[in-house]
Amino acid sequence: MINVVIIGAGNVAAHLYRSISAAEDLQVSQVYNRTAENLGFVRDFKKRCTDINELEKAELFLIAVKDEAIEEIADVLPDSGGVVAHTSGSQSLKTLSKFQNFGVFYPLQTFSKNKEVNFREVPVCLEASSDENLEFLKEVAGKVSDKIFEVNSEQRKALHLSAVFVNNFSNHLYALAAEYCKENGLPFKILQPLIKETAAKIETLPPYSAQTGPALRNDQKTIAEHLKMLNKDQKNIYSILTQSIQKLHGKEL
Amino acid sequence: MINVVIIGAGNVAAHLYRSISAAEDLQVSQVYNRTAENLGFVRDFKKRCTDINELEKAELFLIAVKDEAIEEIADVLPDSGGVVAHTSGSQSLKTLSKFQNFGVFYPLQTFSKNKEVNFREVPVCLEASSDENLEFLKEVAGKVSDKIFEVNSEQRKALHLSAVFVNNFSNHLYALAAEYCKENGLPFKILQPLIKETAAKIETLPPYSAQTGPALRNDQKTIAEHLKMLNKDQKNIYSILTQSIQKLHGKEL
Repeated sequence: MINVVIIGAGNVAAHLYRSISAAEDLQVSQVYNRTAENLGFVRDFKKRCTDINELEKAELFLIAVKDEAIEEIADVLPDSGGVVAHTSGSQSLKTLSKFQNFGVFYPLQTFSKNKEVNFREVPVCLEASSDENLEFLKEVAGKVSDKIFEVNSEQRKALHLSAVFVNNFSNHLYALAAEYCKENGLPFKILQPLIKETAAKIETLPPYSAQTGPALRNDQKTIAEHLKMLNKDQKNIYSILTQSIQKLHGKEL
Repeated sequence: MINVVIIGAGNVAAHLYRSISAAEDLQVSQVYNRTAENLGFVRDFKKRCTDINELEKAELFLIAVKDEAIEEIADVLPDSGGVVAHTSGSQSLKTLSKFQNFGVFYPLQTFSKNKEVNFREVPVCLEASSDENLEFLKEVAGKVSDKIFEVNSEQRKALHLSAVFVNNFSNHLYALAAEYCKENGLPFKILQPLIKETAAKIETLPPYSAQTGPALRNDQKTIAEHLKMLNKDQKNIYSILTQSIQKLHGKEL
């Protein structure tokens, strides 16, 4: 049985807690958070911990806190010899170099409080201070997910930035469309099947090949009509993305 | 049994053909296209038609051709009294006003050649020249889809423009991320679960509430680091979408 301590009480911590607790040969021995109030997801009271000096030895310490708080935790967490890994997409491996054994355990997914995620489908990006520690992290990650990737700090940063494009920015486009629908007396749910299919399509087709629409067709009439229907900010976004599609597909405006 | 003639041989025509052929009380009586070569999806040879004057009477004529070709078809299609409807998101109902009975039958989805779509999940947006014709289109649409909406020409245009945002532009963000991953030696498939979950999330949460990321947190350090990692065009898109997120959430830069 591998003992895992989780540090943090946010969405990532809660989802890790659930998947590790359910995995074979793994158990969450303790979950630490400065205040007790967010530790409600830890069913077993004895596993809740609010004093970092009361953490016991474990094979793995997973730091699942906000990026800004990782260093702070690293400063106060006692080194008991177990592998200490953070779960951040943007922080370097070196942030944890004060420990004897350290690594990164980055689950590349968007986690919400009340929405279950099948963790076996979540890509876990690993990096470690030694081959031995990497093998250990692979062993643990393999017990909760089927998608294990070895990713260095530079690549992980690039991945995190890509995630901003496909997650944060796509979601914002949905939000702009939702607003625009509302202004025009249309229910947003009418767009949901299209959003779902757009995301599903790139599992069988590279996004370059899946591209459609007036920008790709260089349909200037429709583009001009669309621009007339938008306000200044919307128009700006429409123009820049239209130009970018045309540039990528070799159709300069 | 309601007889339906389909005009066109593209993806929309082929998907309509399949769903109408499979529906109860509906049958595709003929499919017209100028050339025979693209009519391979029509299994029954006798139903293929390449001379528009050889189309027989039917209760419904669905014009599923490119926007630019609708008027051309309307000019040459004989009016035999059935309801003539186009399937375009951007063309007005009036385009077909030369017919006695006319309407719009707009399926709001992205259709690919080799990817099946569950048509029952496809929103169908209807508009017609009379209440009677609208009732008729509702009856037909209800036999192939569970999602029927009454949408006027102005609203349909707004919907079509919204679709450009959530489909064309989101897909382009996926394409930019795919390119960026490639440049950094990362497989694009590592982002697929995140893309899927981002799209799935807005079925339970409005996109405004689903927003996360450095722009929303106004995390200037991460934003500055990201900008340093991008080329000029990517940087432009990153900045504009970041500003737009902050504006929508009342956090002006």
